[in-house]
Amino acid sequence: MQQTHTAPKTGHVDFVGAGPGDPDLLTVKAVAAFDRADVVLHDRLISDAILQIAGRSARLIDVGKAGFGPSWRQEDIDALLVRLAVEGQRVVRLKSGDATVFGRLDEEIEALDAAGISWAIIPGITAASAAAASIGQSLTRRGRNSSVRFLTGHDMQGFADHDWTALARPGSVAAIYMGKKSARFIQGRLLMHGADRATPVTLIENASRPDQRILETTLDRLASDLSQADMTGPALMFYGLAPRAAVRAATELKKEHA
Amino acid sequence: MQQTHTAPKTGHVDFVGAGPGDPDLLTVKAVAAFDRADVVLHDRLISDAILQIAGRSARLIDVGKAGFGPSWRQEDIDALLVRLAVEGQRVVRLKSGDATVFGRLDEEIEALDAAGISWAIIPGITAASAAAASIGQSLTRRGRNSSVRFLTGHDMQGFADHDWTALARPGSVAAIYMGKKSARFIQGRLLMHGADRATPVTLIENASRPDQRILETTLDRLASDLSQADMTGPALMFYGLAPRAAVRAATELKKEHA
Repeated sequence: MQQTHTAPKTGHVDFVGAGPGDPDLLTVKAVAAFDRADVVLHDRLISDAILQIAGRSARLIDVGKAGFGPSWRQEDIDALLVRLAVEGQRVVRLKSGDATVFGRLDEEIEALDAAGISWAIIPGITAASAAAASIGQSLTRRGRNSSVRFLTGHDMQGFADHDWTALARPGSVAAIYMGKKSARFIQGRLLMHGADRATPVTLIENASRPDQRILETTLDRLASDLSQADMTGPALMFYGLAPRAAVRAATELKKEHA
Repeated sequence: MQQTHTAPKTGHVDFVGAGPGDPDLLTVKAVAAFDRADVVLHDRLISDAILQIAGRSARLIDVGKAGFGPSWRQEDIDALLVRLAVEGQRVVRLKSGDATVFGRLDEEIEALDAAGISWAIIPGITAASAAAASIGQSLTRRGRNSSVRFLTGHDMQGFADHDWTALARPGSVAAIYMGKKSARFIQGRLLMHGADRATPVTLIENASRPDQRILETTLDRLASDLSQADMTGPALMFYGLAPRAAVRAATELKKEHA
C-alpha cells in the first residue's frame, strides 16, 4: 500500500488595520492580504465599502462586539482565530483604523502564540491621522506642541490627575478615541485642572467616509453642543485643534450647495 | 475676429503621507495621487522603492532639507509649491510617514492658502504604527496604558517638567520621533523624574524596509547601547515597549541564518 504524504497547509493570521473607512485609505498590503485570505474576521465598525473588497474572494465573519444583537465574547474570537489557523486557513483579522491603537490586539496575539500559530500585523491609518487630514491640521506643530497624546474615553480608571494637569496647559493637543460618552467627564476634569474654557474641541464623525460630519466647539460648550449634535457614528475628538479656516469655508460652501 | 476661451488648468497640491518606506504601505489613494500628478516634491528620507512609483508619470523634485549637501530653505519650498500650482500643475508634496505627525506641514499650507490654491491631505502610516507592527506590540493596552504619547527628540525647549513626571510613571508608553540624538537627554530627564531604570526601550531603524533593524535595550543602558549600534537610518524609539517574545525569537532566527 502506498502512502501519500501531502504537506499540511499552514495557517496564518494577518492582523490588518482597515483605516478609517474610505476604501482608498487601505494600504496596498492590506488589499493583497484580503486577496490571499480564505476568511476575514471583522469588527462591526468596518465600512461596507471595505467589506466588499475584503470579501471578493474570502469568507466574511462579523465578530463585532459593539451595539445591540448577539455579541461575541473575546475568548470566542480568540478560539475561532486559533481553530481556523489550525485548519490551515489563511485568516485576516480586520480591525478599524490601526490595529495597534486601541485595537484590543494583545489577547488575540497571545492566543495565537500559545497555539504556535504564525501571525503578522499590517498597520493601518489610525483615526487621528484621518481626522487631522479632514480638518486640515497637523497633530504636532513647532512652537505649539512638540507632542500629541492619543487617549481613550473608555477605560479611564487609570488616568492620573497629573495627566489632566499636563493636558490642561495651553497648546496641548490630544486625539480622544471613543470620546463621545466620556465627553462630559473629560470636560469636567480639564476645567477642574485649569484648562482654558475657550480651548478648541472638534469632533469628526465617520472621518474619511461620505457621511463625515465635523462638530466645531470649545471645551466650555462641548457637552451641550455634543448633546444637540445627534452623532451616532464612530467619532474622533480633538482637544486643542479647530478646523483650519480654509477647510471650514469649504465645508460651509458644501452645506450651502447641498 | 473669433476669440477662443480655454478654461485655465487649475493647480492643486496633495500633501501625501508616504508611510514608513515599504511601498506596500502606501495607501491606494496615495498611489492614485502619484498617477494624477504632474510633479512630486519629496523629502530626502523617502525610499527609492516609493520614488519609483511616485515617478512613473510625474517629475520628481528632491527638496530634502536634512543631511549634507545643498539644502532647501522652507520658504523656497513654499514658493515652489505656489509657483507650480499657479502654473496649473497638479502637485504632490510627499512627506515621510503621516504628514500631520512631525511633518512641518503648516507653513506650506499657509503659503497655499495665502495664494488661494486648493490643497488636500492624504494621510499615511505614521512611523509609530509601522514600528509597533514590527515588534508585534500594541501602542495601547487595557490595564497597562490607556494613552500613548508621540513626541519628538528635537524641539525640546517647550517640554515641561510635569510631562517627564507623567512619562516616568510605570506603564507609560511613548513613541519618540527623531530620538537618536536626544536619547541621552531623554534618558537623563526620565531617570531624574524617577523612571524605573529597567523600563524597556526599543529603537526600530528603517521600520518596514528590507534593512530594518531592532535595538532592544532599557532606559538604563539606552545611551551606551545606542552609541555602539551605529544606527544611521531614520529610527523610531519606543519608551515602555519591548519586542514581543515571538517576534524576538523570529528575529534571532533570521540573524542565525543570515
